[in-house]
Amino acid sequence: LITAADVWAHLDALAKPRRSLGRLEELAVSLALTQQRLDPVTRPRRVVLFAADHGVAAEGVSAWPSEVTRMMVDAIIGGRASSNAIAAAQDCDLGLVDVGVLGPEFTSDDAIFRRARIAQGSSNLARCPALTLEQFNAAWAVGAEEARRAIQEGAFVLIAGEMGIANTTPAACLTSLLTGVPADQAVGRGAGSDDAVLARKRQVIGEAVGRALPLLHADPALAIASVAGLEIAAMAGFHAEAARAGATVLVDGYVATAAALVAERLAPGTRHAMIAGHLSAEPGHRAALEFLELTPLLEWGMRLGEGTGALVALPLLDSAAALLTGVARLDSIGAERAD
Amino acid sequence: LITAADVWAHLDALAKPRRSLGRLEELAVSLALTQQRLDPVTRPRRVVLFAADHGVAAEGVSAWPSEVTRMMVDAIIGGRASSNAIAAAQDCDLGLVDVGVLGPEFTSDDAIFRRARIAQGSSNLARCPALTLEQFNAAWAVGAEEARRAIQEGAFVLIAGEMGIANTTPAACLTSLLTGVPADQAVGRGAGSDDAVLARKRQVIGEAVGRALPLLHADPALAIASVAGLEIAAMAGFHAEAARAGATVLVDGYVATAAALVAERLAPGTRHAMIAGHLSAEPGHRAALEFLELTPLLEWGMRLGEGTGALVALPLLDSAAALLTGVARLDSIGAERAD
Repeated sequence: LITAADVWAHLDALAKPRRSLGRLEELAVSLALTQQRLDPVTRPRRVVLFAADHGVAAEGVSAWPSEVTRMMVDAIIGGRASSNAIAAAQDCDLGLVDVGVLGPEFTSDDAIFRRARIAQGSSNLARCPALTLEQFNAAWAVGAEEARRAIQEGAFVLIAGEMGIANTTPAACLTSLLTGVPADQAVGRGAGSDDAVLARKRQVIGEAVGRALPLLHADPALAIASVAGLEIAAMAGFHAEAARAGATVLVDGYVATAAALVAERLAPGTRHAMIAGHLSAEPGHRAALEFLELTPLLEWGMRLGEGTGALVALPLLDSAAALLTGVARLDSIGAERAD
Repeated sequence: LITAADVWAHLDALAKPRRSLGRLEELAVSLALTQQRLDPVTRPRRVVLFAADHGVAAEGVSAWPSEVTRMMVDAIIGGRASSNAIAAAQDCDLGLVDVGVLGPEFTSDDAIFRRARIAQGSSNLARCPALTLEQFNAAWAVGAEEARRAIQEGAFVLIAGEMGIANTTPAACLTSLLTGVPADQAVGRGAGSDDAVLARKRQVIGEAVGRALPLLHADPALAIASVAGLEIAAMAGFHAEAARAGATVLVDGYVATAAALVAERLAPGTRHAMIAGHLSAEPGHRAALEFLELTPLLEWGMRLGEGTGALVALPLLDSAAALLTGVARLDSIGAERAD
């Protein structure tokens, strides 16, 4: 087993002042530990976006109508969303899976797209459980299968991203449910909510978490399913399977981190494979990352989703890997350590 | 002329919640402004490392002996320094110029290396002016020539890096001289100084700045030369020429920012081409960046030099450029803006 001390010993022998690359060296240690090797690999890498709608959108918790989920799926298939642009810039393969979008099945046969719809959206968590346990497990399995496929095809770094109007509401429910932070501290504006939307969102989340919490100890999956979403369940399965298989899991923003909390709760130890890409503008994100003991690489106020925050952070891993593998030892260049 | 408002109007029309990529969007605006185009280009890019020694090393201001400059030049030519590794990971061309290393001329005919030595190191700024005006101007010209060459060969983003034992001492002198921060606030530990070294460094810098300051108004270049170094003068010329030619200047750490201060003082407006890669662990760096009105992309406690901080930040520019050029407008995907 490779320990942090092993990685630091390697870094401290390199031809540079000790610890002079600050946070990059800490990232190198994290990266080496996630892959359990002193020469971690960051290419190829893949982001898989999971798309689904949310019954709770009917409560007016989002500024955007559910139809936008569908429009964005089409945009992603067309290669014209923010995630496509940034993934291409960072040499990252991109996949997209419909696990629960409203409306007719997508007919695209584009290679990046996969049909795996469990249902036309989740149920309205303000009125009843969002998902049945069967739906939750089916979505989890789709995500796990995507991680297995990516790793079989060579990926060493995996990112789960999402597209789902209203999904910061289930994310806030899960953050409150699984970390214990009060519901009102877990709620933010998502993709552009005004004050009235925010107040309604806060009420819905508080009530739903209040119903889920008594179930959590006896049946955590059932409690989680009651406030989750299909794309979140799929991302959780993706995270858990990627970790099990020894890949690095680069965690995106608030919704992806909620899925990371779910993965860690149901598959303990998953968090040891995780590196947090960024701290989003959503107020509950910090508590979720702290619960997982993750330090975000960037604090850039990003709140788009679609895996974009992790994609922006991804090349920082390339530099960390290069430091571990491409630099001479100080003693090999004839110098003696002065620090 | 492209203004920030033009770039924001472009970004605010894209298929995503407005301003939802936070700092990445601010970077996109900065990048577009440096190149004066809505579709800025980040490849090819080049880092040029300038190496020189410093007479002030005789005062015991560095933990490392001057011989290490020479050893690291050999390591860089051999492709085994931190800068080589990170530049390769980030698809960045790398050049290295000896403008003033101690000892015999390097005999390497490696394509990345250029012999342009002005002198065997600077004079000891604790005793006399570090550079004559002629030396300063000659080094500046070498840097400017390197920038011209890089741009002729296609580079759109340019980074100046350095290797020079003891060069945080002239960097601190220049920061104090050109921004007005007291000398003791501009001094840090550099590449691993202990308390005794730090105290001596603070004394040397305070005295040298005290001698240079009265000259600054009447003859700024002479005042600057008196506390500069050959690689810093070359980096200043590199920055100024890159800016004049319309390239983006990605500024590295404390020593590179001291060179940016010199460039802005002697070629006013140079700062409008600059993006700050990172805030280093050196305490004077923040004041220098604030003087230039630059916000660093990363605050990662890096203090290695060699262009490494800018190289780590470089791929963030790729994501910003991709956002400007690769994303559909919201109205083109059939959605109406809700935020």
